[in-house]
Amino acid sequence: MTNSQPLSFSEFSTTSLDPAIQSLLQGLPPSSFSILKADSTNITTLTPKRLAVCFSGGPAPGGHNVVLAIAKLCHNHHQLFGIIGGPAGLIKGQLKPLTVNDCLPYHNQGGFDLLQTDRTKIKDNSQLKAIKRVVKRFQLDAIIIIGGDDSHTNALFLAQALYSDTCAVIGVPKTIDGDLRYPPYLPISFGFHSACELYTKLVRNLICDTQSILKYWHFVKLMGRSSSHITQHVAHKTNPDLYFIGEQIAHDNIPLSAIIMQIGDTIIDASLHNKTYGVICIPEGLLEWVPDVKTLIESLNKHINLNDRSAILKKLSSSETALFASFPTYIQDQLLLDRDSHGNIQLSRIETERCLIHMVEAYIADLDPTFTLEAMPHFYGYEGRCTTPNAFDAQFCTLLGQVAGSLALHGYTGHMAAVDSITESYQAYGIPIADLLTIETRHNEQIPVIKKTIVTDF
Amino acid sequence: MTNSQPLSFSEFSTTSLDPAIQSLLQGLPPSSFSILKADSTNITTLTPKRLAVCFSGGPAPGGHNVVLAIAKLCHNHHQLFGIIGGPAGLIKGQLKPLTVNDCLPYHNQGGFDLLQTDRTKIKDNSQLKAIKRVVKRFQLDAIIIIGGDDSHTNALFLAQALYSDTCAVIGVPKTIDGDLRYPPYLPISFGFHSACELYTKLVRNLICDTQSILKYWHFVKLMGRSSSHITQHVAHKTNPDLYFIGEQIAHDNIPLSAIIMQIGDTIIDASLHNKTYGVICIPEGLLEWVPDVKTLIESLNKHINLNDRSAILKKLSSSETALFASFPTYIQDQLLLDRDSHGNIQLSRIETERCLIHMVEAYIADLDPTFTLEAMPHFYGYEGRCTTPNAFDAQFCTLLGQVAGSLALHGYTGHMAAVDSITESYQAYGIPIADLLTIETRHNEQIPVIKKTIVTDF
Repeated sequence: MTNSQPLSFSEFSTTSLDPAIQSLLQGLPPSSFSILKADSTNITTLTPKRLAVCFSGGPAPGGHNVVLAIAKLCHNHHQLFGIIGGPAGLIKGQLKPLTVNDCLPYHNQGGFDLLQTDRTKIKDNSQLKAIKRVVKRFQLDAIIIIGGDDSHTNALFLAQALYSDTCAVIGVPKTIDGDLRYPPYLPISFGFHSACELYTKLVRNLICDTQSILKYWHFVKLMGRSSSHITQHVAHKTNPDLYFIGEQIAHDNIPLSAIIMQIGDTIIDASLHNKTYGVICIPEGLLEWVPDVKTLIESLNKHINLNDRSAILKKLSSSETALFASFPTYIQDQLLLDRDSHGNIQLSRIETERCLIHMVEAYIADLDPTFTLEAMPHFYGYEGRCTTPNAFDAQFCTLLGQVAGSLALHGYTGHMAAVDSITESYQAYGIPIADLLTIETRHNEQIPVIKKTIVTDF
Repeated sequence: MTNSQPLSFSEFSTTSLDPAIQSLLQGLPPSSFSILKADSTNITTLTPKRLAVCFSGGPAPGGHNVVLAIAKLCHNHHQLFGIIGGPAGLIKGQLKPLTVNDCLPYHNQGGFDLLQTDRTKIKDNSQLKAIKRVVKRFQLDAIIIIGGDDSHTNALFLAQALYSDTCAVIGVPKTIDGDLRYPPYLPISFGFHSACELYTKLVRNLICDTQSILKYWHFVKLMGRSSSHITQHVAHKTNPDLYFIGEQIAHDNIPLSAIIMQIGDTIIDASLHNKTYGVICIPEGLLEWVPDVKTLIESLNKHINLNDRSAILKKLSSSETALFASFPTYIQDQLLLDRDSHGNIQLSRIETERCLIHMVEAYIADLDPTFTLEAMPHFYGYEGRCTTPNAFDAQFCTLLGQVAGSLALHGYTGHMAAVDSITESYQAYGIPIADLLTIETRHNEQIPVIKKTIVTDF
């Protein structure tokens, strides 16, 4: 087995940052703010390095290929450690040597089970101190974090914190949601296409079922957190009767009642043509884009510490009251009771597909009490995160692993690995994570987060 | 394009029927009660015939290959009609000529969309009369019904009714549920293996997800109506933490509380070993096998016409009352309110996976109020019925189509097409549907139905 040759890089262009963000990132070297471009003509021999790699956040197809590619880069020349259990494992120092042979059984396999993963956010000083101790103990020259947007925020601030320890931090863009991109250098994150392929197959099977037995309206919710990329992609491939893009709902300022009406009218119109079946696709994050739902949630969040149902409801405006009343009772309860650790409503916990079915049933019953809607809810998400990578992701991840490993071996820090295609003429880049940063208000705090790419071409 | 040669058959063995069943089937010829075996040495030239083929019941992968094989048998020598929209289409006379070219685009494709399907039961005289008119109008020599157990009951009584019209009726064993078999002549119905393959992939992906992110207990309900074949097959291939076979629950007389306890204890025990995740598979028909649930349902059905919640509940025994009270409120409401057209409780409408999650949560909360169960319900069913046939079903269906078409062209009636394998040395049979018949009590009526093959090897 021969190991692959690390790429070398040169500075390609610098980015101009928002001064507010720049001020948060003091201490990072100037190269951390430059786009790096791989430059294969400039091959140098590297001194032996000690790298560690971890998964962070939900699994996505292809992750194992990233790790194998890094292991191949390190083979015989550098020491690679696998961090077990994601960022929490890094904090706890759960590292073990990782060889090409360890990784080979996982080549082209879905899942993150080789190293496991978790969602721990690295935010406080005690965590950073613990990581510094781990870096020292294992004499790490670089840490590679394979993760999504929040993981890249982690990676950047870790890069800043570990710069004085001469430990670099590099990110690899992973997420099935498809909301972490940097075009044209990185057209998509890995995992998106494989997950979409599975969801497309499932939705296509449902559509075929309806066209075979001429029965049921299937309401299919598709994973993707806030952004509607997966729903859009699957809808473009399958042509369901109806689909919604959250970003478009917000852009066009469409209230929930109009969505219910559109679905209800589609179903009634179809039945007039003896079509009593169909498939409707909705993105996981739909409700957070619907303008009046958003306003209602903000009002509820503001008054939630009144801790008394009727007192809270009295604070709502008349339109908010009407919207609240239009939800099925169990959703109303969920809106008032189900809180996250910050006391906020957990919109993501609401089963939108079931909520819509209930509301559409009520809408139709108002128009025609004799109409029976045979509807089936589905949620496709978890079954796609660990599916086998398709040919694109398998190859894409191998390239991303080579790029990430090369950036790390060269000591670049604060970069995200990127390739612009998987064609033979692909170009590899190191993207300054800083350039993805933006300041967002979350729970009344100004915090730097990675900009999500949302759907804009609707 | 050459058309394939019809098989010829000879009587292989006769079956001895229950006299009660025999008496129901008067008028059918003796051959309808014999197992026929294909005999390739005895090739005869057949006079041109007019056949019609329809799908009946839910779709299953491979159905299109059955139809294509029949079309190839008929090509240039016989006239084939496709019946559009299942048994209802037969009654309405929705027939259209069907050629090999019509079928070719559907070769190896999932779904029943070439001809569509429905679930109409043929039971009354007006339906039979309508079909007789269609047979006359299209001068049909045979009708081939591709369907499951109920469709074969249809097929047999239709064979009896149409014998005087010299129109034969042949069945092709279809169902993903795997409960229509006649071993060793027919080890399985078509569609079972392809559907299981998809469900296996989805469950395997979920297991991989839990082993990657170490989170969530997934409760996966798998289609299959009463029988637990699909759940058993998927469980054998994926090794979930726990799975239930309805037939075993009934055999071992296990009450619902014991099932809840087993799940709850499994989850608690795992958490003691820091395992806070897993996958549990349950068959769609679980509840109807649980002995105390069955007794409760029978009691509720008996008293349901009291039409008053408290009056009905007063009629329950103390153990029935306790069981009823252990269900979540929305399931209690469903048990009291949701009725089929016969006024019976629709057990199949209960979302068992959600019901179990609620009951397990309650069980665990009793033992340890601080324990948080992060559970996710899934139901895999409809997405598997129209999936692409795998290599086995693709080949199996081609053979079944050849056998069914050959039986029909020879004028045999009341038989189900069967092949014992897809190896080169496969043997083809015509199975007397009569031999699959049994008398069952449904809604206080004694009715002849096809024996379902249930799971016995647990």
